[in-house]
Amino acid sequence: MDDIILFHERNRAQVFLDRIEARNPLFVCVIATTETAKIHGISAAGANPEITDYTPPADAELLLLGKCKCIPGVPVTPEGIPTPALVTMSALRLSNTPTIVVNAGSKVKPMIPFIDLGGVPGKDIRTGIAVERTEELFQNSVILGEQLSKACNYLVIGESIPGGTTTALGVLLAMGFDAKGRVSSSKPDNPHEIKIRTVEDGMRAAGIQHGDLKNRPIDAIEHLGDPMIACVAGIAVGAAKKVSVLLAGGTQMTPVLATITALNRKVVENVAIGTTRWITQDPTSDIDGIVSQIAPVPILAANIDFRSSKLAGLQAYEAGIVKEGVGAGGSVISAIAKSRGSMTMKQVVSEIEMNYEMLMKSR
Amino acid sequence: MDDIILFHERNRAQVFLDRIEARNPLFVCVIATTETAKIHGISAAGANPEITDYTPPADAELLLLGKCKCIPGVPVTPEGIPTPALVTMSALRLSNTPTIVVNAGSKVKPMIPFIDLGGVPGKDIRTGIAVERTEELFQNSVILGEQLSKACNYLVIGESIPGGTTTALGVLLAMGFDAKGRVSSSKPDNPHEIKIRTVEDGMRAAGIQHGDLKNRPIDAIEHLGDPMIACVAGIAVGAAKKVSVLLAGGTQMTPVLATITALNRKVVENVAIGTTRWITQDPTSDIDGIVSQIAPVPILAANIDFRSSKLAGLQAYEAGIVKEGVGAGGSVISAIAKSRGSMTMKQVVSEIEMNYEMLMKSR
Repeated sequence: MDDIILFHERNRAQVFLDRIEARNPLFVCVIATTETAKIHGISAAGANPEITDYTPPADAELLLLGKCKCIPGVPVTPEGIPTPALVTMSALRLSNTPTIVVNAGSKVKPMIPFIDLGGVPGKDIRTGIAVERTEELFQNSVILGEQLSKACNYLVIGESIPGGTTTALGVLLAMGFDAKGRVSSSKPDNPHEIKIRTVEDGMRAAGIQHGDLKNRPIDAIEHLGDPMIACVAGIAVGAAKKVSVLLAGGTQMTPVLATITALNRKVVENVAIGTTRWITQDPTSDIDGIVSQIAPVPILAANIDFRSSKLAGLQAYEAGIVKEGVGAGGSVISAIAKSRGSMTMKQVVSEIEMNYEMLMKSR
Repeated sequence: MDDIILFHERNRAQVFLDRIEARNPLFVCVIATTETAKIHGISAAGANPEITDYTPPADAELLLLGKCKCIPGVPVTPEGIPTPALVTMSALRLSNTPTIVVNAGSKVKPMIPFIDLGGVPGKDIRTGIAVERTEELFQNSVILGEQLSKACNYLVIGESIPGGTTTALGVLLAMGFDAKGRVSSSKPDNPHEIKIRTVEDGMRAAGIQHGDLKNRPIDAIEHLGDPMIACVAGIAVGAAKKVSVLLAGGTQMTPVLATITALNRKVVENVAIGTTRWITQDPTSDIDGIVSQIAPVPILAANIDFRSSKLAGLQAYEAGIVKEGVGAGGSVISAIAKSRGSMTMKQVVSEIEMNYEMLMKSR
C-alpha cells in the first residue's frame, strides 16, 4: 500500500503491518506538560508559550468529543495552524477506534474521562530535576498496559506534550545516544541550538555527562525527561508482553524506545514506531538515525498528503509546520490497516478537511 | 447451567446469558464514598465506620494487583469477614478479564491507574444535598461508556461504595418506588429502620416527598443518592446503545436501573442485573420486588456456595454477612459464561479459597 510507507527496517515493518491488518486497535492518548515548553523559542504547540499548558487537555478533548472544552476553538501554532489532533480525531472516527486518555502529568486536567496515574507535571529540565517519582509513574503505567492489552488486539500510543522534543533530547543524551541535531520540531526552522543549550544546562545542574545514564532510563527521565516518556514506555512494557504496540509519534518516541529497550529488551520485537511522512522526510531531523542506535525497530509512516488541499491551514503541514503529534501518523496507519486498505488516504484527507472546516466555522 | 441461576424474568435472563456466552467482557469497577456510610449502624463495609473511606480504593487495588496498597491486608467487616472483592478478583483472574477502575468520587484515591471523572465524594444524605454536579458526572460517564463499549463484547459494571444501600433507598423513594424494607445489607440483620430514618431526614431537609422526583433521577441522586449511581448509570447508557451491560451488584443496582430507564428507555433491553445467590435468597431484602416496579429486566445470580468451605471467613457469607459487592456475582457469571461452562463453580470456589488463604497469610 502506498498509503503506508515502510520507512525503516522495511522487512520488520512489513511483518508488523501484516500483524495489525484487519485487527482492532485501542488508541491511547498520553498527555503531560513540562515547564520546559515555556522556554522562549522551544515549542510551537500553542499560540504562545503560556497557553501550551492547555494544548494537551484540549487535544484529548478533541479526540473524545470532536471539540475542545477547556479552550475555545482548537490548539493552534503561533501562525494559527491547527493541532495534529485534528488528523488523529478524523482517523479514529473513520475507523471507530476506542480511545482512552491517560494523564501522565498535565498541569490542566481535561474535562473528559481520563486515566490518572498519579503523575505530576514536568519541571524545567534546566533545573536538573525534571520528573518527580518517575519510577512510580513507570510502574503504574506498566499495570495499566497489562490491563489495556487484554482489551484489544494491539495498542496505538500517541502523546501530547509541548516541548517534548527537547526533553526527548535530554533523555537521549543522558543515555549516551548521538542525538544532537536529530530531534524534530513543530517549527519549520528547527531550533536545535536552543534545545541543546537547554539540555546542557540541565545536565550541568544535575552533574551528568553525556552517557552517564546509559541503561538507566528512569534516572535519565527523572533528571532530563518528561512524564510522557515514562508513561508511554510503561504502558508499552506492560502491553507488549502480550500484544503489538505502535508508538505513534515522531522523535519523541525514541527516548520511549530507549527506555523500553533498556528495561525489557524482550518485548521490543512487538514494538514499532508509526509516524508521518512529514517526519520521515524532515531535513531538520533524523528519526531513523536515532532509532538505529537503539534497537532494530521498524518505522512506518502515514503518507498523508495535504499538497492539493484547498485549506491553507492543512497545506502548511507540507511546509514543515507541526509535522506530527497526538499520534496523528500512527492513528492513520492503524485506521487504514484495520480496513485492510479499503479505506484510502484520500478518504482520510477528506474527513480531515471536513472536520477542519466544521471546527473552524464553530470558533 | 446450575452455576448461574435465572432468577427473575427467566426468559430474558436466558436470552441475555446466550448473548454473553463465549464473549469477552470488560469489567469496570466504579468506586465512590458517601459520608452516609459513617452514620452509626449503616455499613459493615469496613472494620469500623471511619475506615470505610479506604474500602473502595482497597477493593480496586485488590482487583488490579492481587493485594491492597492503601491498607494492610484486605477490607473486612467488623467481624473480620473479607471483602467480596476477593470473589471478584478470583473470577477476573480465572477468566483473564480486562479490568478498569473508575473513580466516581472516592475520598481516598487508589494507588493504581484509574479513570477519573471529576466527581467528588458524596455527602451525608441527611443534609438533603448528596452529590454535587450530578449531571456533569453522569454526562462524563456516558462519554466513557461510549468509548469502553468499542473495546469489548460487553460490559460488566461493579461497584464499591460503603453505605450504598441507604443512598439507593433514597433515590428509589424520591422517585416514587415502593422500596422500604426491600434494600439489602452487608449485615445479616438488615438495619431497615436506620436506613429509612436516614432517608426521611434527607427528604425532609431537601423538601421532597415520596415520588416527587418521579422520572427525575439526576435530581434524586443529587439530593439523596451517591456518585456511584450516577456514574454506573451513565456508563451503562453510553455503552448499552451498542453492547450488552451486566449491572453487577445487589439492590444498589436498582436505582441505577431506574436512572437508565428514566433517561434512555430504549437501551434497557440490553441491560441485566447480575448478583449472587446470597442476594436473591436474602429474606431481609427483595431485589426482584424493586426491579419489577422499574422495567422488565432479568436478574441472574451466581450460585456461589461456601457451605462446605473449610474457611470460616467464607462460610460466614452463608450466614448473610457481606452477600455481594465489587461486582462479585456478575464477575463470576461472566467468567463462567466466557468459558461456555467449561469453568465450574467448584473451580471458582477453589480459586477464591486459594487467594483467601494467600492474602490472609500475608497480613
